[in-house]
Amino acid sequence: MTILAITGGIGGAKLALGLTHFLTPNELIFLANTGDDFEHLGLYISPDIDTLIYTLAGVVDPDRGWGRSEETWHCLDTLAYLGEPSWFQLGDQDLAVHIARTHALKRGKNLSEITDRIRIALGVKYRILPVSDDPIRTFLHTSIGRLSFQEYFVKKRCEPTVNQIEYEHSNACLNPRLDLSELEGVIICPSNPYLSIGPMLAIDSLFEFLQSTRIPVVAVSPVVAGKAIKGPTAKIMQELGVAVSAIAVARHYKELINGFIVDESDIDSVPEIESMDISVSAYPSVMTTLQDRIKLARHSVNFVRSLSQQ
Amino acid sequence: MTILAITGGIGGAKLALGLTHFLTPNELIFLANTGDDFEHLGLYISPDIDTLIYTLAGVVDPDRGWGRSEETWHCLDTLAYLGEPSWFQLGDQDLAVHIARTHALKRGKNLSEITDRIRIALGVKYRILPVSDDPIRTFLHTSIGRLSFQEYFVKKRCEPTVNQIEYEHSNACLNPRLDLSELEGVIICPSNPYLSIGPMLAIDSLFEFLQSTRIPVVAVSPVVAGKAIKGPTAKIMQELGVAVSAIAVARHYKELINGFIVDESDIDSVPEIESMDISVSAYPSVMTTLQDRIKLARHSVNFVRSLSQQ
Repeated sequence: MTILAITGGIGGAKLALGLTHFLTPNELIFLANTGDDFEHLGLYISPDIDTLIYTLAGVVDPDRGWGRSEETWHCLDTLAYLGEPSWFQLGDQDLAVHIARTHALKRGKNLSEITDRIRIALGVKYRILPVSDDPIRTFLHTSIGRLSFQEYFVKKRCEPTVNQIEYEHSNACLNPRLDLSELEGVIICPSNPYLSIGPMLAIDSLFEFLQSTRIPVVAVSPVVAGKAIKGPTAKIMQELGVAVSAIAVARHYKELINGFIVDESDIDSVPEIESMDISVSAYPSVMTTLQDRIKLARHSVNFVRSLSQQ
Repeated sequence: MTILAITGGIGGAKLALGLTHFLTPNELIFLANTGDDFEHLGLYISPDIDTLIYTLAGVVDPDRGWGRSEETWHCLDTLAYLGEPSWFQLGDQDLAVHIARTHALKRGKNLSEITDRIRIALGVKYRILPVSDDPIRTFLHTSIGRLSFQEYFVKKRCEPTVNQIEYEHSNACLNPRLDLSELEGVIICPSNPYLSIGPMLAIDSLFEFLQSTRIPVVAVSPVVAGKAIKGPTAKIMQELGVAVSAIAVARHYKELINGFIVDESDIDSVPEIESMDISVSAYPSVMTTLQDRIKLARHSVNFVRSLSQQ
């Protein structure tokens, strides 16, 4: 039986790495967000998938959390010199992945096939499935207009105020490689619920599966003590008029989950979340070291398994 | 009035650089070969145009004669690691040009517009016109079958025996930006007559112009003392059953030129070339230093101008 880990980029990838330290490739499968994917300078870029692959392959830049370690930027510097947009950071090694992916897409391969090839080449033994092989795209309606995800996130550095999030996917299908019948449980990684997990849940069949399945579905809170662990989660929740709290995240996922992991510091929120008919576990969930990641990952799997025995 | 320099890659670019040292951007225009252009990993690559731009911009690698100096190869190494073909050398800085060009072509720009943008960005003040904005492609029929130019030249390192050269260009038009009426003379640079100049001359209107014009057309021999200065010229001439000599090159161009520059060491060939009704000038034509290039360039222009006064 297999654990499905639903994940976005940096935050989710940390827990993902922890999971690979004790589950085998048969016991674990990743479903990755593609709502951030975009075309830039003619290259098809899948930031969350790349972050996940680089993290699991051990080649991610440890400080940035994205892109490759020991990266160089000679191509990007030259692109800027030629007057091309340089706001999106394209490292020289990273570029190879974008070139290979774009070329393969042009030859008719789908994103799953390409992801498989790249992660295998980089030595990642775990299956990584794009949530869909069809395009899904996240747009943000903001104080300065409707922005694509990367325009908002990278070009505008999350500065505009977000009024609404739009998930565009004309009937995108859940990745058909995902065999739901082999799953023993689901972990929603501590990625941004709106920007990273949201686009995936906007695919009806995934939402409906999580809503109706009898296997345990556990989310790990990306909000700790009223602050987001990483990125613009807190800012966006505020702007959307949601309290920045583990409780609000639990409420956001409430139809889909039967287990929720909050940080120890949010122990006070347990009764309120439990009142939503959700089992709650409080555990240290700030992942600084690799050991933190493995511990939280192990705790998450144990929690899933304990719920399946109820 | 303007000198038109018709040029291929490395050999021609040396003379081209010499020309820029005393002619102004109004007095000189380059017509560059695109028969070597190809798509590789989804990128549109124009090797001869790039060599010319890099040479004129002073950023060409001085040892290789192509690509950029102080180049790095991190993207190419990663492409190889991902299992992508790595026989074509894509430097990290060089890649930026391919990405920018490919992206612009996709957006409907033509090769002339893109070439202009790239050479201007790199500080080249001289006009560089692709011989055509339409695709032209050189193929070689060889001992191991029909090969595209880059397959023959780079992948197979010119090793297969050449039986025949094929210039494929479905009615490609001579670059309409080239104003033939402004020309005072033409210099055919010492590029490979078959691989670099041949594809350009296969465009009927260019061939016919050179054949019928009253302005002087001077070729500089790429063969010196029975050897090619650079690349596979000698090998190909042999395989095509042509003597490797300045005389054979003059005979090859005979319908088009009225002036021919041979190296001093080929002074014995002058009478035979003159018997083809071609004026001949013997001059040191091995370009080792920048001074050699400038001297040969100046001599070529003087020779053109002397012929126009006859």
